[in-house]
Amino acid sequence: MRTLVASGVEVCFMNPGTSEMHFVAALDRVPEMRGVLCLFEGVCSGAADGYGRMARKPAATLLHLGPGLANGLANFHNARKARTPIISLVGQHSTKHLEYDAPLTSDIEAFAQTVSAKIVHLESAEAMGETAAALIAEARRYPGRIATLIIPADFSWSESGPIGVAPAAPPPGFVDSKPDFGAGAGFILGGRTLTGKGLEFAARLAAAGYRVFADRNASRVEGGRGRFQPPRIVYFPGPAQAQLAGLKDLVLVEAKPPVSFFGYPDEASYLAPADCRVHTLAGVEEDGMGALAALIEELGLSEASFEDPEPAALPTADGPLTLDSIGAAIAALLPEKAILCDEMVSSGPPVLAQLTRAAQFDYLPVTGGSIGQGMPVGVGAAIACPDRKVVVLEGDGSGMYTPQSLWTMAREGLDIVTVIFANRRYRILDIEMRRTGASGFGSQSNDMVDIARPDLDFVKLSEGMGVPATRSTTLSEFIDQFRAAMLEKGPRLIELRLPPPQIE
Amino acid sequence: MRTLVASGVEVCFMNPGTSEMHFVAALDRVPEMRGVLCLFEGVCSGAADGYGRMARKPAATLLHLGPGLANGLANFHNARKARTPIISLVGQHSTKHLEYDAPLTSDIEAFAQTVSAKIVHLESAEAMGETAAALIAEARRYPGRIATLIIPADFSWSESGPIGVAPAAPPPGFVDSKPDFGAGAGFILGGRTLTGKGLEFAARLAAAGYRVFADRNASRVEGGRGRFQPPRIVYFPGPAQAQLAGLKDLVLVEAKPPVSFFGYPDEASYLAPADCRVHTLAGVEEDGMGALAALIEELGLSEASFEDPEPAALPTADGPLTLDSIGAAIAALLPEKAILCDEMVSSGPPVLAQLTRAAQFDYLPVTGGSIGQGMPVGVGAAIACPDRKVVVLEGDGSGMYTPQSLWTMAREGLDIVTVIFANRRYRILDIEMRRTGASGFGSQSNDMVDIARPDLDFVKLSEGMGVPATRSTTLSEFIDQFRAAMLEKGPRLIELRLPPPQIE
Repeated sequence: MRTLVASGVEVCFMNPGTSEMHFVAALDRVPEMRGVLCLFEGVCSGAADGYGRMARKPAATLLHLGPGLANGLANFHNARKARTPIISLVGQHSTKHLEYDAPLTSDIEAFAQTVSAKIVHLESAEAMGETAAALIAEARRYPGRIATLIIPADFSWSESGPIGVAPAAPPPGFVDSKPDFGAGAGFILGGRTLTGKGLEFAARLAAAGYRVFADRNASRVEGGRGRFQPPRIVYFPGPAQAQLAGLKDLVLVEAKPPVSFFGYPDEASYLAPADCRVHTLAGVEEDGMGALAALIEELGLSEASFEDPEPAALPTADGPLTLDSIGAAIAALLPEKAILCDEMVSSGPPVLAQLTRAAQFDYLPVTGGSIGQGMPVGVGAAIACPDRKVVVLEGDGSGMYTPQSLWTMAREGLDIVTVIFANRRYRILDIEMRRTGASGFGSQSNDMVDIARPDLDFVKLSEGMGVPATRSTTLSEFIDQFRAAMLEKGPRLIELRLPPPQIE
Repeated sequence: MRTLVASGVEVCFMNPGTSEMHFVAALDRVPEMRGVLCLFEGVCSGAADGYGRMARKPAATLLHLGPGLANGLANFHNARKARTPIISLVGQHSTKHLEYDAPLTSDIEAFAQTVSAKIVHLESAEAMGETAAALIAEARRYPGRIATLIIPADFSWSESGPIGVAPAAPPPGFVDSKPDFGAGAGFILGGRTLTGKGLEFAARLAAAGYRVFADRNASRVEGGRGRFQPPRIVYFPGPAQAQLAGLKDLVLVEAKPPVSFFGYPDEASYLAPADCRVHTLAGVEEDGMGALAALIEELGLSEASFEDPEPAALPTADGPLTLDSIGAAIAALLPEKAILCDEMVSSGPPVLAQLTRAAQFDYLPVTGGSIGQGMPVGVGAAIACPDRKVVVLEGDGSGMYTPQSLWTMAREGLDIVTVIFANRRYRILDIEMRRTGASGFGSQSNDMVDIARPDLDFVKLSEGMGVPATRSTTLSEFIDQFRAAMLEKGPRLIELRLPPPQIE
């Protein structure tokens, strides 16, 4: 623990068990470490993802043996795709106990390898500090990755070696050479380039006639008025291909070639035109910001003018409750510097379209498609940025994967407002089932995407875990409740009952 | 799906996504298959475990890509340790989509290998039926295992080959030779031998002066009055060693050499005396029942007398609410042939001691130590045995890993009563932390085992997912509520507020 703290790791999201008791006990001797208890491991891994995306440095997670790690893997998958730095600590049976096949014995490395860039099964207590420091350094390699340390219990209860200190991560580099692209080339920006100076560079490219897009799965995007907001590559392949149509050159900056989320029977997975040449200005582990700066200078682009949308206006309260009006209300009421965690799934596009008119915010989207990340990422973001309002925009289906997040929000008094978009369907699957050509849907199959029976009561669920909650069934109620939640500090939940979706 | 049905697989616990839509659509064409929707994948895998333990045949699970499978792994771990037959179906991106690194792309085999005896990544649509049938046969190999079929989406949307039919599993064998043990030898019975005829054989062994024990981690144990109830090997190594003290011979029947759950600094992991000779009458994949029958015959043991405990008497309602009085109340009120799913953790021993005086029941214990199995296993058991009352005895800490189970209980109208033993601690860790020698516990570390803040309200949580719930704070309330729940059909939850545990 002293190695972690000496290396700048100050938060540990944990759900410990017997093998981790010595680490837990150390919390009282190392007050610089903040232990955050989560009731389910997927909350730990998702929170570490949210923390790392905002703090740009690793949190630790502490999970119990193979099965505890297993419960964290889905959100670790998202973190891996987000390239978030995380130091994952996993307890192991004591070395002499390992030879017996006890109930909890499993192949922890096998679980860990699914998401980890590096795994070390600790081989001595003496090496604890040095090994942890090396793994922290690995986790911090730009832009970030998951490094896993498996710690046999006897090394925790033995005298350890010296404290380690992780060396500073080497700064990322880039190859300073202008790709051979022509006028009207397209750019896809990802990674760190969708924040700060990167958006200014993007604006200059756009002003010069280049077509600039945001990587759909970037880990963090700054949005809101007063800055250039490049359009994201959209979810479905047809419209995404239309976005990129006509491009002869596509320049990737901390982004990969654009592909659709899923494959479909008669649609392309690869989204750029077949004859479009793809140039990598900076790979996903390179310094895209530096590469962009050099390119902008070489191109001599100084003008960054762009059209800023009108500020959001609060919709009339007696208007209909639609995704557009909800989005407009959020956009109008969102305070400056809010952090938005998005897991709205099918409800997302209309709401996000409205948010371009909001005050400036950070946006943390889905990166890996594992469901159950919205609320945990919010937990981590709130701990990384205690002075900023966090708003989690969550589906009712997706909200049921890691609802235990609410308890940690209440326990830590986090300033998070969770809005549940309750349409009582796995609505995205209504759409996907038709796109994949699955036919013959009747009552049996419909039942597998219908979550209206029994009715989920998110107000009770939230109150049951200590987070005050209200329900909005009209736009007027939503505006009142969301406004109040923006003005107060502390966790709140609003269950937003949407009209039943039209099933076409 | 027709292959599954033709091979006797009639239930599929599912949480599907885009890649699985054709399988879902097939539910309307194959009415023999019952699709059971769960809101979280750990409920699917735990339910398949409970189903398989009771039905003695596999259910299917249907999960979505690597991350969906990841969320099911912890309860698959328990199922693996229980040797439960399960056919695990996992969707995969279409083969042409796989070459791109889409957000949800991951190494599904890597996730699956942590729990699966066999994994096949389907290579053509034509081979679908044949491959599924071979995997069902693998899952059914005695006593059972997890077989995983990874199905690329394009093979689901293409014309498939012929329906497969899994061949009957070969009956398990055993080596018919009497181990060389002396008078007063000990026996540890596990696997199927803790049910039916096996307990009668056990009674004959005990009547002849042999010391008979039950494998602590057996998947299913028949208990209650009127049958021999061999003591389970206890959890902590010291008392377990005392149980086995003095044995010169130990005979294992579908059981492995006894080891403790965890290792501790100054305690043995291996529980039998060092000079005790260990004989395997039947290995964990052999026919223990047949081997026992042959042995009993060879030994000429016909007498099976044993002392039956007095029937449980309902404790006086104005008595104190203790684990003993709660156990006595459950024992007195439990209807014949109930199925008990136990995840009480620290609250367990006093309650289980009382249950020896109950009417006959099946007991489904923790097998692999993954937390969050109690309620899901209850879901599966209730679907396997719709005419029997299922009682889930659950901790408040453990109850928060897969609470989504409650929604499926309500949706399917399952006859399950969940009793939450709410002591507001990870109480087992209070005990374990001291046993592992972790010292210096202060307020920071205490916080990591204290789940009282904020207060969990299981009544609201349960009602929020559609299961009627009540709270008991006195013995009288508990008796009234539990009695009423035993007399009614359908899902109920009782939050049993225990007095705060004494922290020594």
